[in-house]
Amino acid sequence: MGELSKESCEACRADAPKISDEELALLMPKIPEWGVIVVEGVMQLQREYRFKNFKQAMAFSNRVGELAESVGHHPAILLEWGRVTITWWSHEMNGLHKNDLIMAARTDEVLDV
Amino acid sequence: MGELSKESCEACRADAPKISDEELALLMPKIPEWGVIVVEGVMQLQREYRFKNFKQAMAFSNRVGELAESVGHHPAILLEWGRVTITWWSHEMNGLHKNDLIMAARTDEVLDV
Repeated sequence: MGELSKESCEACRADAPKISDEELALLMPKIPEWGVIVVEGVMQLQREYRFKNFKQAMAFSNRVGELAESVGHHPAILLEWGRVTITWWSHEMNGLHKNDLIMAARTDEVLDV
Repeated sequence: MGELSKESCEACRADAPKISDEELALLMPKIPEWGVIVVEGVMQLQREYRFKNFKQAMAFSNRVGELAESVGHHPAILLEWGRVTITWWSHEMNGLHKNDLIMAARTDEVLDV
């Protein structure tokens, strides 16, 4: 299997299929730091990143924001002192699309920039 | 009464007094868009700001981040598509200090920049 972050995001429509349980189980090990949470019945991917101070956390938030803007798919970015929590899901379909896992993998790459 | 945003933030210590109910009742009308929430027993000030797109929301988040960094007191900044939710409280004292109301007023001013 290739790198998840290198796969292409598909345009996402309200009637696009959510990711299957099988595919999710297959792909989650590729983004081991991410967890699946369920918020008001909606499955989401979440990871918390820690930083030494606010400035570094803000810089990371901005890199994630620029990544999001570049693909037209936007996570929730919670910026606090020394900590950024990123949550990806597909609003259009109230759940997870494979795109979200791809974006989670790309978010991890942005950390290393 | 003068403008809340023009008042000085005091250095905040763990043993500083939380804002009194009387002072809170007196000052909240100066920041009418803000609400008081209680999260795990901790009183916090929260306001949601709406924007036309992600880019404008991110720009506002950054202005709030710079404001926070300039005074050394940091809120939680939740950035989503078209929406930014700011939450102020004083971590050191697990509650609200007058500083937080001052910073809420200054956050409103940053919106208009």
